[in-house]
Amino acid sequence: MSKINMGNFFEDFSIGQKIVHPLPRTISEGDVSLYIAFTGSRFALHSSDLVAKQMGYDKRPLDDILMFHLTFGKSVQDISLNAIANLGYAEMAFPNPVYVGDTVSMTSTVIGLKENSNGKSGVIYVHSIGVNQNGAVVLDFKRWVMVHKKDHTNLSGVNEVPTFAKTTPISQINIPTIKCVDTDSTGGKYFFEDYEIGERLDHPEGITVDNSDHTLATKLYQNNAKVHFNDHMMKSTPMGQRLMYGGIIISMARAISFNGLQNAQWVCAINSGAHANPTYAGDTIYAYTEILEKIEVNREDIGLLRVRTIGLKNQTPKETPTPKNEDGKYLPNVVLDLDYTIVIPKKVTEKK
Amino acid sequence: MSKINMGNFFEDFSIGQKIVHPLPRTISEGDVSLYIAFTGSRFALHSSDLVAKQMGYDKRPLDDILMFHLTFGKSVQDISLNAIANLGYAEMAFPNPVYVGDTVSMTSTVIGLKENSNGKSGVIYVHSIGVNQNGAVVLDFKRWVMVHKKDHTNLSGVNEVPTFAKTTPISQINIPTIKCVDTDSTGGKYFFEDYEIGERLDHPEGITVDNSDHTLATKLYQNNAKVHFNDHMMKSTPMGQRLMYGGIIISMARAISFNGLQNAQWVCAINSGAHANPTYAGDTIYAYTEILEKIEVNREDIGLLRVRTIGLKNQTPKETPTPKNEDGKYLPNVVLDLDYTIVIPKKVTEKK
Amino acid sequence: MSKINMGNFFEDFSIGQKIVHPLPRTISEGDVSLYIAFTGSRFALHSSDLVAKQMGYDKRPLDDILMFHLTFGKSVQDISLNAIANLGYAEMAFPNPVYVGDTVSMTSTVIGLKENSNGKSGVIYVHSIGVNQNGAVVLDFKRWVMVHKKDHTNLSGVNEVPTFAKTTPISQINIPTIKCVDTDSTGGKYFFEDYEIGERLDHPEGITVDNSDHTLATKLYQNNAKVHFNDHMMKSTPMGQRLMYGGIIISMARAISFNGLQNAQWVCAINSGAHANPTYAGDTIYAYTEILEKIEVNREDIGLLRVRTIGLKNQTPKETPTPKNEDGKYLPNVVLDLDYTIVIPKKVTEKK
Repeated sequence: MSKINMGNFFEDFSIGQKIVHPLPRTISEGDVSLYIAFTGSRFALHSSDLVAKQMGYDKRPLDDILMFHLTFGKSVQDISLNAIANLGYAEMAFPNPVYVGDTVSMTSTVIGLKENSNGKSGVIYVHSIGVNQNGAVVLDFKRWVMVHKKDHTNLSGVNEVPTFAKTTPISQINIPTIKCVDTDSTGGKYFFEDYEIGERLDHPEGITVDNSDHTLATKLYQNNAKVHFNDHMMKSTPMGQRLMYGGIIISMARAISFNGLQNAQWVCAINSGAHANPTYAGDTIYAYTEILEKIEVNREDIGLLRVRTIGLKNQTPKETPTPKNEDGKYLPNVVLDLDYTIVIPKKVTEKK
Repeated sequence: MSKINMGNFFEDFSIGQKIVHPLPRTISEGDVSLYIAFTGSRFALHSSDLVAKQMGYDKRPLDDILMFHLTFGKSVQDISLNAIANLGYAEMAFPNPVYVGDTVSMTSTVIGLKENSNGKSGVIYVHSIGVNQNGAVVLDFKRWVMVHKKDHTNLSGVNEVPTFAKTTPISQINIPTIKCVDTDSTGGKYFFEDYEIGERLDHPEGITVDNSDHTLATKLYQNNAKVHFNDHMMKSTPMGQRLMYGGIIISMARAISFNGLQNAQWVCAINSGAHANPTYAGDTIYAYTEILEKIEVNREDIGLLRVRTIGLKNQTPKETPTPKNEDGKYLPNVVLDLDYTIVIPKKVTEKK
Repeated sequence: MSKINMGNFFEDFSIGQKIVHPLPRTISEGDVSLYIAFTGSRFALHSSDLVAKQMGYDKRPLDDILMFHLTFGKSVQDISLNAIANLGYAEMAFPNPVYVGDTVSMTSTVIGLKENSNGKSGVIYVHSIGVNQNGAVVLDFKRWVMVHKKDHTNLSGVNEVPTFAKTTPISQINIPTIKCVDTDSTGGKYFFEDYEIGERLDHPEGITVDNSDHTLATKLYQNNAKVHFNDHMMKSTPMGQRLMYGGIIISMARAISFNGLQNAQWVCAINSGAHANPTYAGDTIYAYTEILEKIEVNREDIGLLRVRTIGLKNQTPKETPTPKNEDGKYLPNVVLDLDYTIVIPKKVTEKK
C-alpha cells in the first residue's frame, strides 16, 4: 500500500520545508475555450486577439483566474488533500501574464505551523510561488489550511504563526502601456476616473451551476480534492453531496462582474477572501461589487481599483443590502466575500 | 446603478441606427472540439484536415452553424436582452469560410420599427453583418425581435416594417473548386444528382440534451440571454426552469441530418426558421429533412439543395407524418422548422 | 429511405471483407483539454511539454486511451451500430505515438463469422488498424461483436472463429530513449524495479460520472451508438436510461490508477478486457490494480508491467477483496476487468 500517495498530515510539515508540486501544466487553447464555457466570461482582452493587439499585447493573455486555477490545482495533493478546512489566503499577486503554450508549475515553502489544542489537527501556513517555463513568477500567495494529525496523543505544542499584510503589496505591474481601449469592442464605457469609492454595482446576471459543469472544471484544473468529485463518499457526510470547489465561485463572480466593470480586464491581486457558505449543484450564483479604494500607480494609462465582490446563491444583489447580519455573521445565501485589486485604464486610453 | 448595462428597450432604437456589437471573438481549436462534443457532429470537412485538403482547402474550415453561434452571440446584449420573443430571421447568408484563428465581430443596423398597439412593446428589425479580422463578410442576416417599452403611456405610432425575400438571394459561393470527394472518408455516397424534390429523409439518431450541455454551449457562445442560464429566476416563471437556447436545436438538428446528407457539408443560407415549441433539459432531439428545391449555380462541381429540417422532441420522425395539425398549428413535439440551403458536390467530384 | 445508413447486419459481412471507416479525425488541443476535464487525468507526459521534452519527446504526445477513443469511434457505424453486445477485444497494441495535429483513421478486415444457432444473430470478428496521416500504425486490435441478422429463417451455418493470443505480442516500442524522469514533476517516485508481481494498488480516488460528462465525451469521439445518447429510446428498454460507453470506464480507471502508477505513462497493449456490469449516470468509479507480470524488453531505460485493473462502481477497493464470487461470476459492483501492459522507466532514468 505504500506506493499510494495519501497526502500529507500535520506532522509531515516543518518550518522552512520546500515542496515542489508535481505536474507542470502546459496551457492550451482548449483550456481557454473551456473556461469561457464554464463561466460565460466576456472580458474582451481574453476573448479577442484583435482587442489584445489594440491594447498593446502580441496576442490575448490568459484570464488571471483561469491561470490561478491551473497553477493552484497542482498544490492540492501536497497541501490540502487531507484538509479539514481551507482557512484563508493573503498577499496574492499575479505579477506576469500567461499565454497559451506556456507551462506553469508551483513550489511552496512552509512558513508557519500551529498545532490545535485538541491534538487532532493543526494549521499549516505556506508561501506558494507559481512560475512559467522561463521562471517568471505568475502567481505568488500565502495560504493556511487546517489538516489532520496522524498521531492525536503526541503533542508538539508548535505555534509559529506568520503575519500578513492586509492588502497585497503591489511591487510590479507587468501590463504593457495601454495604447488604445475601444469601448465598442470591450462593451463598457467606464474608466478609472468614472468609479467612486463606496459605489456599489449590482450585477444583474445570475448563472446556475450544475454537477457536470463544476466537476469538469475542477478536473480540468487537476485539483483532486475528493469532496468535489466523489458523490458516493459525500453521501455519507452531513453535506450529502459533492461540494463545489470554492474557486468555481470566484470564477463565476468575476465573470458576472463584467457587467459594470467591462474595462477592468486584469486581476492584479487578491487581498483576502472567504468562502462564507458552501455551494452545491443547482445553485444560481449572483454577485455585487463595492469600490473600496482607488489607487494611482505612477502610470498615465492605468489605475487600480480595490474592490469587494460578494457572491450570492439563489438571492439577487437587490435582495442583499449587506452580506452579514447584526452579529457580524455571514447571511446563509452569501457564498463569497472577496477583497481584490483590479486594473482599469484611464480615459486617456479611450479610442476616439 | 447607471454603470450596469440593462439592455436596450424599444425607445432606444431608431431607423438607420448602427450598433457595433462589442466582444470580437477569436476562434480556437477548443471551440471546435467543444462543438463536436456538444453535437456529435460528424461532417468530415470540419473534422479532418485530410478531407479538407482533398476537397481543395488549406485546412478544415469551421462548421457554419458554430460560426453562426460565435458571431451571433455578440448581438444578444444590444438587441435581445429584453426580448419578449425572437420572432424571426430572413435572408441569412454565410458568404465566406471561417477558420481557427480568425476573429469575428458583428454590427447591426436598425431597418424597421413597429410599436404594438397596447403601448407596452414593439418589434425591432435589424440587418446584422458579421465580419472576420480582414473585413470579409462571414454572416449576413435580417432579424426581428419583440422588446419591451420603457414608457407604456407615450405612443409613437411608429410602423415601418421592411419586407424580406422568401429565400436568401445567393450572390456568391466562396467554396473552392471541389477537387475530390472521397466517399470512404465522408461516410456518404450520395451526390447532388441523387436527391429528388419531395424526398424525405428520416434521420434515425436521437440525442438527449442535458442542462450542463446546453448551458456550457450557450456560455461558450457568450450569448448572455438570462432565460438560458438562471434557474433561480426561471423557477418563478410559467416555464419553471431554464429554456434551451434555440440555436442549440439548430445545431442538434443539423448534426443529426448527417445521416442521409453526409456530403452536404456547407450551409449556404438560412431562408427562414421557427422555434415551434420550447425545449428543456432532458428532451431528446430528433429530426427529419425534406428536399424542397434543387438549384444549379453555374458550377460543374457543386449544386444547392434547399431543404426543410423539422426538429422534434421525444418523438421520432416515423411518428411524425407532418409537423402541423389540420389547423396549421405546430404539433406539440415539433421544436424547429428550418428552411435552409445546403451545398453538395456533384458526382463528377467523386473519387474513383 | 435508402439514403439512411442503418448500419450493417450479420449478412452484410464476409470473411476477408475490408471496410474503410469514414471520418478521418484531426486531433486538436481542444480534444486534449476536454479529455483532462472528463477524467481528471494527471499523467505528466500528456499534460506538460516540459516533462515531455525532459523525457526525450519534442512535445507532449496524446494520452493513449484518448487516441484509442478518437480512432475507435470511427468504426461504430460500420461494425457495431446494430450490436447486441460488444463481446471482446484481443491483441490490442498502440505501436506509435500520436500528437496534436495528427489525423487518425481506421480500416477493418473481417476475420471471422459465427452464426448463432437460433438464426437471429451472429458474431463477427474484425481486425482493425488505425493509422496517422503518414500511414504509421497507431492502433491495432481484434474485436468481436454480436449483431442482428436481417433474415432469421435463412441459416448459413457459417462458423469460422479465429484464435487470439492470450496477451498482445509486443513487436515494437516506439518510445524514445528516456533521458530523464524528474519525480518532482511526475508526482511518483516508483520505477520498474519497485513493483512486485502480485502486488495490489488500491487507488483511493473515486470519481462520479454524470450524464453531461459521459455524453459529451462519447460525442467528442464521434461514437454514435444510440444507447449512449438517446434517453427517449432507452426509457423503453429494461435499462430505462442511457448506458455509459464502456470506454468511459476504461478512461476513468486509467486516470484513477495514476495514484500508485505515476511513472507508468504509456499504455503499450490491452491484452483482454470485460465490461463486467453496466454503468449509468451518477455512478462513482473506483479502481484497483494488480501487478501480473514484469517484462524486460531489451532496453536499459524502460520495462513493461502487465497489470490488471478492476473498475468498481459505488464500492471502494478496500471493500472488494476479489472481483468475482465463488462461482466465478463478477460481483455486481465490478464494472471493468482490464488486462493490459504499461511501460515504466527504470531507476537509471531518475533525475538526481
